[in-house]
Amino acid sequence: MADKAVFYHAGCPVCVEAERRFVDALDGDRYSVEVVHLGEQKDRIDEAERAGVKSVPALVIDGSAYHINHGVDLSALR
Amino acid sequence: MADKAVFYHAGCPVCVEAERRFVDALDGDRYSVEVVHLGEQKDRIDEAERAGVKSVPALVIDGSAYHINHGVDLSALR
Repeated sequence: MADKAVFYHAGCPVCVEAERRFVDALDGDRYSVEVVHLGEQKDRIDEAERAGVKSVPALVIDGSAYHINHGVDLSALR
Repeated sequence: MADKAVFYHAGCPVCVEAERRFVDALDGDRYSVEVVHLGEQKDRIDEAERAGVKSVPALVIDGSAYHINHGVDLSALR
């Protein structure tokens, strides 16, 4: 069964480019990737923050947060 | 044939953790990942910089640089 990964973004250009690349590049047999737009799903900002996300775009894999380049700080989305 | 991706790092803890995760998570059928330790291969710092790498760990895929979290600035490795 695939592990779950969550890609958090906010629709910014850096986000879109990173999403296109990373969601696509991850091994689909091992990871099922959920894409969450925090600008539209503000109720999930707390969840992202708890996982260690400080800015988007970010990918959370097995509970670890990886910030991929820098688009927007999480605080700017609240 | 697999596309080439290059993972640049400098042996720092953030680098090691990101390497373990991302080199492993990329779809191996599509990407052949070369791992370059810029602390040991200083002659490749220029190449990394030309690809847009500003800090490590970073992954360069198809000519685009993705900084994954932040370990060490490239300038500190020269």
